[in-house]
Amino acid sequence: MTLADQPPAAALVFQTLLAQGPLTRAEVGRRTGLSAGAVTKVATPLLADGWITELGRLEGERANGRPATLVAVRAERACFAGVKVTGDELIGFLGDLTAQPLATRRADLRTRDVGTVVHAIARLVAELCAEAGTTAHGPVHSIGVTISGDVDGQTGTVQYTPFLNWRRVPLAQLVQAATGTPTVIENDVRALAVAEQWFGAGAGLSSFALVTVGAGIGAGLSIGGRVVSGAHGVSGEVGHLPVGGSDRVCTCGNTGCVEAVASTHAITEQARQATGDPTLTIDDAVRLAHAGHTAVRAVFSRAGHALGLALASVANLIGPQRIIISGEGVASYDLFADQIRQTFAAQAFGAAADCDIVVRPLPFEEWARGGAAVAAQRLFAPAR
Amino acid sequence: MTLADQPPAAALVFQTLLAQGPLTRAEVGRRTGLSAGAVTKVATPLLADGWITELGRLEGERANGRPATLVAVRAERACFAGVKVTGDELIGFLGDLTAQPLATRRADLRTRDVGTVVHAIARLVAELCAEAGTTAHGPVHSIGVTISGDVDGQTGTVQYTPFLNWRRVPLAQLVQAATGTPTVIENDVRALAVAEQWFGAGAGLSSFALVTVGAGIGAGLSIGGRVVSGAHGVSGEVGHLPVGGSDRVCTCGNTGCVEAVASTHAITEQARQATGDPTLTIDDAVRLAHAGHTAVRAVFSRAGHALGLALASVANLIGPQRIIISGEGVASYDLFADQIRQTFAAQAFGAAADCDIVVRPLPFEEWARGGAAVAAQRLFAPAR
Ligand SMILES: [Zn+2]
Ligand SMILES: [Zn+2]
Repeated sequence: MTLADQPPAAALVFQTLLAQGPLTRAEVGRRTGLSAGAVTKVATPLLADGWITELGRLEGERANGRPATLVAVRAERACFAGVKVTGDELIGFLGDLTAQPLATRRADLRTRDVGTVVHAIARLVAELCAEAGTTAHGPVHSIGVTISGDVDGQTGTVQYTPFLNWRRVPLAQLVQAATGTPTVIENDVRALAVAEQWFGAGAGLSSFALVTVGAGIGAGLSIGGRVVSGAHGVSGEVGHLPVGGSDRVCTCGNTGCVEAVASTHAITEQARQATGDPTLTIDDAVRLAHAGHTAVRAVFSRAGHALGLALASVANLIGPQRIIISGEGVASYDLFADQIRQTFAAQAFGAAADCDIVVRPLPFEEWARGGAAVAAQRLFAPAR
Repeated sequence: MTLADQPPAAALVFQTLLAQGPLTRAEVGRRTGLSAGAVTKVATPLLADGWITELGRLEGERANGRPATLVAVRAERACFAGVKVTGDELIGFLGDLTAQPLATRRADLRTRDVGTVVHAIARLVAELCAEAGTTAHGPVHSIGVTISGDVDGQTGTVQYTPFLNWRRVPLAQLVQAATGTPTVIENDVRALAVAEQWFGAGAGLSSFALVTVGAGIGAGLSIGGRVVSGAHGVSGEVGHLPVGGSDRVCTCGNTGCVEAVASTHAITEQARQATGDPTLTIDDAVRLAHAGHTAVRAVFSRAGHALGLALASVANLIGPQRIIISGEGVASYDLFADQIRQTFAAQAFGAAADCDIVVRPLPFEEWARGGAAVAAQRLFAPAR
């Protein structure tokens, strides 16, 4: 995004109020670089159309001799659905304009067939609306579907998603056709990063990296208040940083990827080798490691080392203020933690090591909420 | 940088005109998200003070029924000096407001003592002004000093620079005291990235990475029209990505860093081992490789592999539109090129491989010009 691609003033003001409001008009001006006149000009139709509202006066502050008025988005103006698609389940979220929850719901996926999944998404959104009933003000304004892999949010196409093995699926268009509701799509980790930036552990930070560890390993990188999307639709692919050693082959075909040693599947496989038990599950591996099984502990330790090198790579390249670690894998984070911190501290270059690392379990409902946040955020934003 | 840190309207308009002008006021508004009124309000004092000028009317376009006027910065309004500091040399550049050259000059450094280097910088700037003579309009407005390592541009402090072995040197303040001219400092590669973004191979791109290969290996990452500075002052440390294999120790103390196998020094050392000749220089190594010496060619090939993995790491994380490779090392780029491209293509994830890779030799004068560009760019920008 160059300056030439800056969203116009309406989107800028609305997004600032969404993420940081309530604010006075003067404060909106200060935070957006817009003049008072420009803020007022943009705010007037948004007020008239009910997207924003005046909350009353701030007695302390005054604007042009008059008390300053706080402006906020009207949460009840519209509702938004978010759906996270995994290999075997849909996780749905219905929220208001500020992504506060109205309903959540899950649905099993028994097939990975595109048409069936699209139909299941449409049914889940309808069920969410029925569940919310009258608390949902009007129909769903738009839907944000999130999915792992190479997702082109601009064209609405899933270029490639490994867990469903989809290639070049025009998912936004298909869901829109099935629901009659405008639909956007986004990579699931980037959508979660939008949610974290907006109302999570990334709020108010100049930059952060959200790294998720589990079946896959990915990241959403937030720099300057925006989640990096990548010029070609790919970004945050921490799982395919080549820092893991050369003996294991990744799903992408390379050796050395972090995912090849630290994904849930990779850990299970290595624990099976370490124990000689081909039926061992990830839960078994966690249990054995907690019980002190040396070879299984070494598997987690190796995964932690690869993750530490990956986090240090992120820190050395973009120098985020904070790294947030989440994903299903954090349930057994104690098994990785020491090795991650030790390796990170050693490999982070100079002051990059000052980056704060926090661990944050986030249920899949929170990921689905990221989809709703992305849908709400695209309001008034120009197509890029 | 969050929305709250956006430069105010004056800096936004001025920087847009610097990097993208001449433009009509309407176009400035479109590119900055400011209203026509806000642009006019900001432009009026800039016009009055001679920082910008009206170039005449565009007959095709009309604004409010009148022909639209093109606005541009006045190149001759002020001049800026840029100085790149290396371990043994200063490279100086004097340019106008648009960083067009008025004079360039080099000076040897015989000592790394801070006071002596600061004095040499002051003398070099004075010599540049004398050389430019009457073509330089008035005294130097500000100086941008660039240097490799961990440079905190906000406080003006060099936290650590390996080639001079300086730690916590308040360089901006010292140069300012010695010259009587406002001085900013920046990491040298980030400054070169600013220059590339402004008038080089990065102009008009949504994002790019400038990777420099030579005595050190670093990068400037431009995302959304800004060069990433890192929350703790560190960013773009491609040289310390741990993808190089575990047998060589880096200057930072770790094994596996790209710099430990691909810097000029690392290549020389490995070529010495490969040939058994402890006096061999980098030029000898290049000559032997060109002559087909198998073991020395393998050294370059290994360096190329590490660089390819590093470029793929950058592509997988931030997905730049283009990667620009520069630095002294590109003089013998033919010895790395095939391996870099092959490794990059294999490790870049999905569409990240679509990233365009260009090689661009840039003399140190161009790096110094980056310092002048940083100084000009900070005009009207608020301290962060
Ligand atoms: Zn991989
Ligand atoms: Zn290193």
